[in-house]
Amino acid sequence: MRRNTRQLILGRLPVGGGAPISVQTMTKTDTRDAAATVTQIRELEHLGCDVIRVAVPDELAARELAGIRSSIGIPLVADIHFDYRLALQAIAAGVDGLRINPGNIGSQDRVRAVVRAAAERRIPIRIGVNAGSLAPEILERYGRTPAALVESALSHVRLLEQEQFFDIKISVKASDVLLTIEAYRLLSEKVDYPLHLGVTEAGGPWAGTVKSAIGIGTLLSEGIGDTIRVSLTGTPHEEVRAGKQILRSLGLRQGGIDLISCPTCGRCQIDLLEIVRVVEEQLPETDESLKVAVMGCTVNGPGEARDADVGIAGGRGKGMLFKHGQLLRRVPEENLAEALIMEIKQTLDERKQDHESD
Amino acid sequence: MRRNTRQLILGRLPVGGGAPISVQTMTKTDTRDAAATVTQIRELEHLGCDVIRVAVPDELAARELAGIRSSIGIPLVADIHFDYRLALQAIAAGVDGLRINPGNIGSQDRVRAVVRAAAERRIPIRIGVNAGSLAPEILERYGRTPAALVESALSHVRLLEQEQFFDIKISVKASDVLLTIEAYRLLSEKVDYPLHLGVTEAGGPWAGTVKSAIGIGTLLSEGIGDTIRVSLTGTPHEEVRAGKQILRSLGLRQGGIDLISCPTCGRCQIDLLEIVRVVEEQLPETDESLKVAVMGCTVNGPGEARDADVGIAGGRGKGMLFKHGQLLRRVPEENLAEALIMEIKQTLDERKQDHESD
Repeated sequence: MRRNTRQLILGRLPVGGGAPISVQTMTKTDTRDAAATVTQIRELEHLGCDVIRVAVPDELAARELAGIRSSIGIPLVADIHFDYRLALQAIAAGVDGLRINPGNIGSQDRVRAVVRAAAERRIPIRIGVNAGSLAPEILERYGRTPAALVESALSHVRLLEQEQFFDIKISVKASDVLLTIEAYRLLSEKVDYPLHLGVTEAGGPWAGTVKSAIGIGTLLSEGIGDTIRVSLTGTPHEEVRAGKQILRSLGLRQGGIDLISCPTCGRCQIDLLEIVRVVEEQLPETDESLKVAVMGCTVNGPGEARDADVGIAGGRGKGMLFKHGQLLRRVPEENLAEALIMEIKQTLDERKQDHESD
Repeated sequence: MRRNTRQLILGRLPVGGGAPISVQTMTKTDTRDAAATVTQIRELEHLGCDVIRVAVPDELAARELAGIRSSIGIPLVADIHFDYRLALQAIAAGVDGLRINPGNIGSQDRVRAVVRAAAERRIPIRIGVNAGSLAPEILERYGRTPAALVESALSHVRLLEQEQFFDIKISVKASDVLLTIEAYRLLSEKVDYPLHLGVTEAGGPWAGTVKSAIGIGTLLSEGIGDTIRVSLTGTPHEEVRAGKQILRSLGLRQGGIDLISCPTCGRCQIDLLEIVRVVEEQLPETDESLKVAVMGCTVNGPGEARDADVGIAGGRGKGMLFKHGQLLRRVPEENLAEALIMEIKQTLDERKQDHESD
């Protein structure tokens, strides 16, 4: 059961209120280099990224926003710290969303200026609180606790609500997974604004993916969360792939290839690890939902492989290739990975033709 | 809050009843090749694996169990399907645990024979139900649902309970993450036996780790689970590392290096991705708990890096190296990864000397 949240619109993308959970990331280019930034965003779009955020550290970066915005197809969010004038510039440049913490930009007059400009163009604002940068007075009162993150976020929220602004998203990220989970649980009890989930400073691609999968996955499985960002010290492409995999693993996103493969054991007589490595590497990108099984042994293998759209089950030095439950042929072990990839591509081509003839 | 479960003992390792959550895996060698199997188990032991399971597909494999058992330091579990005589042989060989589904070994006489032998040596039995191999009558009645997995497991449990045998662990695995989560939630309401968590046939090392982290992590964060196994079509070493990372991410296992690193953004002026890749690759294995920060920019970087045991914060073409909150020195970018690794190793050596002088 997803928790019910208000819905807001980023560009044309609904967030919250039952909308599909979106995957976002942040460019790692210098925003002032608009060409490189646009190239990266287009690559991410192609991978299935739904929302892109760019850092706007100065006026030179802000000046590039309009050009970037007009060259891409997904909503653009400007990430701004401290300087309300950059926020005003970003809004004027036509960005689809802001990430800014109103408590950090100075007087309520400045907050009012940003809110009025945002409201006029119906641009949502994300309040993003991180455990690593809590205000000293919050830390003193609450420690580095879920309550500290939530109270910090709510203090920013109140500044916007005072101006009758409610197009708000909130994040309360920590590098500690449990702290992250508990902060979002607490926050989701207190507000019905859509929540942006993430574990911050999670680490490199491997450990960071594990932490993010646990933190984001646990919350999503409890119905909490409307948009997600996996933060890795890695490429944004890795972040998008991990985000999509988390959603797919929970049945929250369709499309893409689901690879079922057995862990192998003493019963396995082919080099399944190598076959899976090759297959995982060469799997084509697709919006189609396809279930592919790579099974090592002839005991449970054929059953599982038959259940998949395309599958192989290993034997001694060779394997069986299945498609939609039918045994197609036996293939020597050294050609199994290649035969499977070819069969996957052909199955996708057939689907495409089916759609075109619909 | 961890759910309270009965405690059982695998060799000398307690499982359940508040014991630390253990990480297990399965050898991927041919069990009949005892030398290769022992070599692999010792490698896994060194990595921090707590329990090892081996497939026992035939009598030749069963004959090697005593030799394997006497050459390793962690509890040995024999994985047996269908043949109760192999179970009796494994028990006689001195294994520390069995994985066998009593409903699949024939008459209640055979169940009784296995249970008596196991009880005599106080050897626990794990019942392991997989969504892919549910009995037709269960599937017909419940479909491939959480209830089907749980009812299947409980039918095996009753066969053991009839013989007054209660040293039971249970697993209810599926390749579907949500089905897995819901099956364990349901099971944990019905029994107080310790639960062995896993997502089965999860896929290759990357997607499989994501699925396992979500499935196992969600359940652990709800207090469910007493021992875990990550199933990957990968090496058992990868499975153990992933299992330990899941536990560490939830604060359920101490030791090892926690690498905090920022996702980088337009503000970052050094090649942080490359630095983190090198550092992640070269991190030493350790039982010490160490927090290492690798931060890209000079805004939040120094604060985070100072908070860690050892850390770096990037600047323009160089970085600052911190240890226990103190700035040690500035280091040119090209030497940053190396300097950090050296500092980590030295810190670990200092800790070791501290322990020795205790």
